[in-house]
Amino acid sequence: MRADFAKLDRAFNPRVVAVIGDSGYYQWLRAHANFKGKLYSVQVNEQTGRDIEEKLKVKNYPSVLDIPEPVDFAIVAVNRRVGMKVLDDLIKKEVAAAHFFTAGFSETDTEEGRQYERELKAQAEAAKFHIIGPNCMGLFNPRTGIKQSMGQYDDDWGPVSFISQSGTHAINFGLEAHLQGIDLNKSVSFGNGTVLDSAEYLDYFGQDAETSIIGMYLEGLKDGRRFIEVLKKISGTKPVVIWKGGRMAGGARAIASHTGSLAVPYAIWEDAMRQLGAVPVKNMEELIDTIKALMYIEPPKGNRVGLTGGSGGQSVAITDAFNEEGLDVPKLTQKSYDELATFFNLIGGGYGNPIDTGNSNRAQLNRIMQIVERDENIDNVVLLMGLGSGGADAPGGVEAVTDLRQHSKKPVLAAVYSPFSSGGVQEARRIIKKLQEGRVPAFSNIERAAKALRNVITYYRYRGSWSNG
Amino acid sequence: MRADFAKLDRAFNPRVVAVIGDSGYYQWLRAHANFKGKLYSVQVNEQTGRDIEEKLKVKNYPSVLDIPEPVDFAIVAVNRRVGMKVLDDLIKKEVAAAHFFTAGFSETDTEEGRQYERELKAQAEAAKFHIIGPNCMGLFNPRTGIKQSMGQYDDDWGPVSFISQSGTHAINFGLEAHLQGIDLNKSVSFGNGTVLDSAEYLDYFGQDAETSIIGMYLEGLKDGRRFIEVLKKISGTKPVVIWKGGRMAGGARAIASHTGSLAVPYAIWEDAMRQLGAVPVKNMEELIDTIKALMYIEPPKGNRVGLTGGSGGQSVAITDAFNEEGLDVPKLTQKSYDELATFFNLIGGGYGNPIDTGNSNRAQLNRIMQIVERDENIDNVVLLMGLGSGGADAPGGVEAVTDLRQHSKKPVLAAVYSPFSSGGVQEARRIIKKLQEGRVPAFSNIERAAKALRNVITYYRYRGSWSNG
Repeated sequence: MRADFAKLDRAFNPRVVAVIGDSGYYQWLRAHANFKGKLYSVQVNEQTGRDIEEKLKVKNYPSVLDIPEPVDFAIVAVNRRVGMKVLDDLIKKEVAAAHFFTAGFSETDTEEGRQYERELKAQAEAAKFHIIGPNCMGLFNPRTGIKQSMGQYDDDWGPVSFISQSGTHAINFGLEAHLQGIDLNKSVSFGNGTVLDSAEYLDYFGQDAETSIIGMYLEGLKDGRRFIEVLKKISGTKPVVIWKGGRMAGGARAIASHTGSLAVPYAIWEDAMRQLGAVPVKNMEELIDTIKALMYIEPPKGNRVGLTGGSGGQSVAITDAFNEEGLDVPKLTQKSYDELATFFNLIGGGYGNPIDTGNSNRAQLNRIMQIVERDENIDNVVLLMGLGSGGADAPGGVEAVTDLRQHSKKPVLAAVYSPFSSGGVQEARRIIKKLQEGRVPAFSNIERAAKALRNVITYYRYRGSWSNG
Repeated sequence: MRADFAKLDRAFNPRVVAVIGDSGYYQWLRAHANFKGKLYSVQVNEQTGRDIEEKLKVKNYPSVLDIPEPVDFAIVAVNRRVGMKVLDDLIKKEVAAAHFFTAGFSETDTEEGRQYERELKAQAEAAKFHIIGPNCMGLFNPRTGIKQSMGQYDDDWGPVSFISQSGTHAINFGLEAHLQGIDLNKSVSFGNGTVLDSAEYLDYFGQDAETSIIGMYLEGLKDGRRFIEVLKKISGTKPVVIWKGGRMAGGARAIASHTGSLAVPYAIWEDAMRQLGAVPVKNMEELIDTIKALMYIEPPKGNRVGLTGGSGGQSVAITDAFNEEGLDVPKLTQKSYDELATFFNLIGGGYGNPIDTGNSNRAQLNRIMQIVERDENIDNVVLLMGLGSGGADAPGGVEAVTDLRQHSKKPVLAAVYSPFSSGGVQEARRIIKKLQEGRVPAFSNIERAAKALRNVITYYRYRGSWSNG
């Protein structure tokens, strides 16, 4: 079914929400404790209803029809056996859309489950009712407080919206991206996609003025033609980064039992996505990093990279990482070397490309990076930063690179060494945050930086804005 | 030159250490503040000598020859111009070995630097004097307090020794491995390897009773034949995991200006290393993870993996990750499915392979993993764990997997979702530590777990202990 954008607008920005049949731990009622509109509970069981009213201070009704005002959005967490009855009421109540957390449909790979799903679909479509799911974690909008899980954040929002066939990936992507300095605008976990499939959410975010980059986690498509039609339209205006799960034989089998989708060979998929203007990626890290690079850098003019690092061993490792992603790490022009020779201390450092500043040249980082940036052989500038006083983030390091970014038309990126310790991650995040506030995308290791830049270069090459590839 | 093991024993376990010419911040004197033997300073400058005695409470002499007792190990941080004079004194003093932090030799790619290095080499070899370096960070032994940098740890030691052409990699590997639960036994950063090259340290650790796994970071070899001869001998008794820097054209150029080594095409190198019984890896993460897997798991019988995860989306991702490393994720036997069918709740979960426990089956994790472990189609068992009460580490999760490890002859591994936050990393490290205390290697994401298992399987296949590959 096609989406009615006005209905999805109401669902993402509801004034009134009803949580239906959320017994046990009351996970959905609790998740919406900070919801900025009005929250109601619907429970048939009187005892449970009283418990909810007492403990959670949420008014309970035995049916959604009893709620004394219009309801914009419902979260349905009932047993599948009563799903049809609840849907009936939602349609009567003219609720804009409902997230069906309820599972036990085609994903169980049983005839019984498939039958339940067919009935749900038929009834919803007849009424043009917008079911999100079933078997999913629903919507996230940090601005209104609509959530997929209790642990999600409030009040920070950015330009990225996310569409996910998996609830776990929707939640983990949102949290992990947030930790990496990328705030979501909206997110949807759509599970079985019975009534509204991925293409409809893509279409919705495509026209959503608050969304400028779209991420997706997909396992399969119910209607490939429709998806291609929408993707073609949207990818011309906004980058669409797609993580495809089930790339290999085994993964495809895991998918069959997860959401009942069918898979295509990954190489074909990947090529098709590029032709259609999308960016295919292989896991959550790559999804986050690619979105990050797309957010902050201008279209690269080519694939030649100028690298600056703190030590010889690091220079070798960073060159390997960029080379292995197919990026070129060429020599600088003689003019640059001549200029470097006027002040560069070779003892403990070295220049070529990468520039290995060593401790002895770190105070000149600003000047060194400007020379690299001006160099005609270089299309992209990358700095590897360490932590602590010995790192390239020594006083002035962050400023050197963010200042360069301000005055440069070339992409400027950074990798920040992030040790596996709480203090190390805290410090790395602090530096990454400062860099990104200065519009320099910063990655937690060099391999991730290289892959993100490679993806952005490939994306713009397919878009035709870079023709010498 | 061949190493005299007795001299290296004295250098790694010195009773008396002299730090020579360490002016400025006194980085080497400070790094050895916790050294368990006796520490002396050698400074010609009287003012500096007095400053050291006052501030650091370390006795200073104008020459190593003035120290009133035998010296086992020296750290030389003088200007290259006085290197020869210092070496003269060290030889006269019959010091067992000296770490030359001093740089400015062949790595500068200048005739002057090369000349300095030739002289140093000739004089040291004539006296059979053991120079470590020059242009390096020297030795680390957490048991005696000999260090490559101030930030290194004391008093924790394990079975892994490390040989590194790069000082930064030596230090970062040691710290990062420690954070991942792997403690070093000893480590050497050998820089230009002028007198003792990588093969000699490999030979030394090969016969060292305290070392049972050897890691290496190499850029190039001065004497390939000697390296192969030693590697052949050692790899028959201890795993040798080798990270080669400068794998591509650009990386090879970065190497030339770092330590003056020459490179061979990486594919040839990789194949040669496998034939010689070593394990080639491509970066520090892979080095740490492969060592971790080698430490804890028994030789796998094949490449078929049984996976258990917490949700459908995770099951797809983990299957992709293992498939992409060439590992097989086959169906279980009908017997296993029949047993699972007696208790498994399909709503919100699913079984095939991976087993997607969902929340509803997580209490049965112990039983589920035992079924997977017993299955005849499965050679290796992997669990993906989340954090917090909703994760697979919910009460009993860690115990389920460590208990399984105790009673199983099949490799048992875990991946622990590690968010990029200080609290997340702290919690992930706590779980990883508990798992590894139970001899289950645990990795901070699924891709890393898959790569480590792939490397261990390949290693044992080349060793011939697994013949059906």
